[in-house]
Amino acid sequence: MAEQFAIGVDYGTNSVRALVVNVATGEEIATNVYDYPSGEAGILLDPRDPNLARQSPIDYIQGFLASVKSAVADAASVPGFSPEAVIGIGVDTTGSTPIPVNAAGVALGTLPEFKDTLAANAWLWKDHTSHAEAMEITELARTRNEPYLAKCGGTYSSEWYWSKMLHCVRTAPEVAAATASWVELADFIPAYITGNTDPNTLARSICAAGHKAMYNEQWGGLPSEDFLASLDPKLAEWRYTTKAVPSNHKAGELTEEVAQQIGLPAGIAVAVGAFDAHMGAVGAGAGAGTLVKIMGTSTCDCLPSPMDREMPDVPGMCGIVPESILPGMYGLEAGQSAVGDIFNWFVKQIAPGAYGTGAEAHIKLTEDAAKLKPGESGLVALDWNNGNRTILVDPLLTGLMVGQTLHTTPAEIYRALVEATAYGALTIIRRAEEYGVKVEQVINCGGIAEKNPMVMQIYADVCNRPMKISRSAQTCALGAAVFGAVVGGAYATAEDAQAKMTDVKETVYKPIPENVAVYAELYQVYHTLHDAFGTADFSGSLSGVMKDLIRIRHKARVGE
Amino acid sequence: MAEQFAIGVDYGTNSVRALVVNVATGEEIATNVYDYPSGEAGILLDPRDPNLARQSPIDYIQGFLASVKSAVADAASVPGFSPEAVIGIGVDTTGSTPIPVNAAGVALGTLPEFKDTLAANAWLWKDHTSHAEAMEITELARTRNEPYLAKCGGTYSSEWYWSKMLHCVRTAPEVAAATASWVELADFIPAYITGNTDPNTLARSICAAGHKAMYNEQWGGLPSEDFLASLDPKLAEWRYTTKAVPSNHKAGELTEEVAQQIGLPAGIAVAVGAFDAHMGAVGAGAGAGTLVKIMGTSTCDCLPSPMDREMPDVPGMCGIVPESILPGMYGLEAGQSAVGDIFNWFVKQIAPGAYGTGAEAHIKLTEDAAKLKPGESGLVALDWNNGNRTILVDPLLTGLMVGQTLHTTPAEIYRALVEATAYGALTIIRRAEEYGVKVEQVINCGGIAEKNPMVMQIYADVCNRPMKISRSAQTCALGAAVFGAVVGGAYATAEDAQAKMTDVKETVYKPIPENVAVYAELYQVYHTLHDAFGTADFSGSLSGVMKDLIRIRHKARVGE
Repeated sequence: MAEQFAIGVDYGTNSVRALVVNVATGEEIATNVYDYPSGEAGILLDPRDPNLARQSPIDYIQGFLASVKSAVADAASVPGFSPEAVIGIGVDTTGSTPIPVNAAGVALGTLPEFKDTLAANAWLWKDHTSHAEAMEITELARTRNEPYLAKCGGTYSSEWYWSKMLHCVRTAPEVAAATASWVELADFIPAYITGNTDPNTLARSICAAGHKAMYNEQWGGLPSEDFLASLDPKLAEWRYTTKAVPSNHKAGELTEEVAQQIGLPAGIAVAVGAFDAHMGAVGAGAGAGTLVKIMGTSTCDCLPSPMDREMPDVPGMCGIVPESILPGMYGLEAGQSAVGDIFNWFVKQIAPGAYGTGAEAHIKLTEDAAKLKPGESGLVALDWNNGNRTILVDPLLTGLMVGQTLHTTPAEIYRALVEATAYGALTIIRRAEEYGVKVEQVINCGGIAEKNPMVMQIYADVCNRPMKISRSAQTCALGAAVFGAVVGGAYATAEDAQAKMTDVKETVYKPIPENVAVYAELYQVYHTLHDAFGTADFSGSLSGVMKDLIRIRHKARVGE
Repeated sequence: MAEQFAIGVDYGTNSVRALVVNVATGEEIATNVYDYPSGEAGILLDPRDPNLARQSPIDYIQGFLASVKSAVADAASVPGFSPEAVIGIGVDTTGSTPIPVNAAGVALGTLPEFKDTLAANAWLWKDHTSHAEAMEITELARTRNEPYLAKCGGTYSSEWYWSKMLHCVRTAPEVAAATASWVELADFIPAYITGNTDPNTLARSICAAGHKAMYNEQWGGLPSEDFLASLDPKLAEWRYTTKAVPSNHKAGELTEEVAQQIGLPAGIAVAVGAFDAHMGAVGAGAGAGTLVKIMGTSTCDCLPSPMDREMPDVPGMCGIVPESILPGMYGLEAGQSAVGDIFNWFVKQIAPGAYGTGAEAHIKLTEDAAKLKPGESGLVALDWNNGNRTILVDPLLTGLMVGQTLHTTPAEIYRALVEATAYGALTIIRRAEEYGVKVEQVINCGGIAEKNPMVMQIYADVCNRPMKISRSAQTCALGAAVFGAVVGGAYATAEDAQAKMTDVKETVYKPIPENVAVYAELYQVYHTLHDAFGTADFSGSLSGVMKDLIRIRHKARVGE
């Protein structure tokens, strides 16, 4: 039988990647990355408002064409590959990243009249301008005793679909007036490349709809017209009635126009899109009870869980959506709003001295930080520089660091920031387990997991669990390719495709008992700060925090 | 009448300065600075213990000889000056900086057999190794219901005399065995240069003894032999019975041997020493109700208060000692353990990038920080990187910063650290006023007050009081020279000398009402954090802290 290939296209925060994968083996034969040219590293900012983060849909379209074309061109030199051997394309993206479109499904941000209007562009997942609207939506759902929030952690987020739409109505009415519908980036790309752009019929991802738009078949899809109209009539107008589906469904077939531009034949099957983390979980080989952590600028946690029991509502968990990761399983999603972003902030903004400013600075700081013992810095930080997604679901939180002396070094701070994100990761695992959701193994992927053994060892020690690493460095794109293979007909199910196309590496980071013991103490400090600053009903005392850290530091440095 | 001159010699943390002053006008005609050559910027460190900070007594002696000799040599070119016109010398130093000496009054650290023994050197004020001993002393005084603590803030400090001595007994018995007495640096130098080095008779400063050694004539001088022996018999052995006196008393006259080395005639009157802050207050022109802030690596606050009323005990105030600043007045002392040290830490250690690392970095960061509006950074810090002296008297506290986002800049952090020290300053003023001690004006001196208008404006806005600046840039040395003039016979009292020799500058930093309003809000946040982390009985909530800062930030950036 001739070799077959699938293409996964992965939209990240700063760039898009195309990956050409051998369907039989998972071998990644070609890849190409396109950096979004607009704004600051692809993000349109407003200097007056640090909460604002938008992106140009033109960057997205150009990014698809350029990255796929280059990857296909590179693949041409690989024996067995030909454009005709590509059987399917899958797409994953950041989210919730909704894009306002007109009645024809054209993104407003691509139209000349909205060239200079920030609100007409894509509202990037980490845009936090909508926190007032998120509170309003949460409040209304509670007041009306609606069931919508129970599946998304009990609080609607400023990062999500309806919050952003409502904020647009309130602050950019000219954009709202021109908008026929809002399309998640995960749906926008499949629609664009298949030509199925009509907002009333284009394929909507259950992953995007279920996790971000309160879509659930229990209550007939999206929240009711009446509920949405109570927020604003525009939202009711924008309520689509399409059935949202998982990525083993086809969104359509590649159009002639797009195909020509990228050097592929028309008619290739395109899978329904999904979010990067969920696709990443699939590409990492996730099944029931496997927590997959996609570690990048932020971290998304995906945990498929069998549908053979009633799933309880888990407070603060961002979402529990049937089939959002794998068909036939609950998809649980959690996340940390900033992980790599915090490390980057420190390296680029705060300590750009002898360590340099880029990748090299991370390497050098890691070298020095790796020499420190747990507890030796005397520092504990909260990982909230971009708010807290899970388990507090509160964007109006900020960073905190305690324990600084006059001798505190950049490497100590860097390590404390890494540790803070590990404590955040543990907090999520604890919450899942408190509600009976099993976490039987942890597989990590993304650049940080790949490249930074210190970070992985700290995660293993803090969480007291082995940390495995996905074999693929491009788990998200690989997961998208898995579904490309499924809709292209190579496999009947995603699990069948995963069995051939995905794996983990041999190196496993195992907890070191003496580190585990120190981190158990430090986590108590984190936990105290977490509850004191993040919850309303904290009743403990903070007067021991600094003294505990000094005691732990002393023990780490001089041994008791 | 021929012109007369006095010399003030000021021992700082990293260097010693000699200043030659015209007794009639206060004109500073020559000065010289000697940097201590040992250790790191003059401080002997132990990499295993960040609490340790010692100094070499050899540096002190060489520093006197070198700095005075050079200043006198420079003065020689000024019309009217001659070595014979020098009528008196005053000395001020850091403290509590006790030095172990043998029966002849020779510092052990100068002896070959103790060349490599850290404990045989001077125990610098900011040595915090003795915190366990400080707690033990506090505990014993409380248990025995002794009156000693009431005058030094209710808690004995790890920075002070007896704590250090007790720690030495416990950890360096060979040093303790060779020690006949411990002499504060403020007394060591006058003793050395007058030859009156016998520990049983050398002049002891009321300023040092009263503020750091629990000396008070109410209970017969130092704490009782019985009390000290309960801590350790060695401490009772080291109890001196000399009457401690203010600096209008003479310690002796310059010896022939020292005089020859510095180009002065023997026999010049030498005043009893005092601490730098207290001398600085005198040099700044302090009288009743004038708070003088000596701002350097740390800040010392001195506040003379009339002796016409009974002075209550003021909890947390480091000391209330009759005549420790000016004869005939209570001397109140307070302080912040780190001020310039915190700014230096940030510049040198944490953000040594585009801003550089030295004085230039402070200037550039100040330039950027000065462009920020109060509240705009969204940050609040606690100024406890070196513990808290007043009002918590707790060295086992550390730094804290809250409000960081992914956009926080070094200039914002720098400003937040400056603001933190201003909140600390306000906390001290509030405590004094709560106990009826009037603060009628504030005069600042020291390098930061001189050179950084942004810092002074922030202090004015945070404290809602005009900030005046001492005319002299060398207030401490000038204060020492004032007492040199008094013991040399030029004036009958310190006040008479101050009237001629000291003044403030024309520039006064006045509070700006809109800034005052924002800082009143931010101070509430500081106050909440202060009590939550620094006191045992805090019962408020911290869940609003981050949200308050975001609200204040938003208001500062976009106006409501």
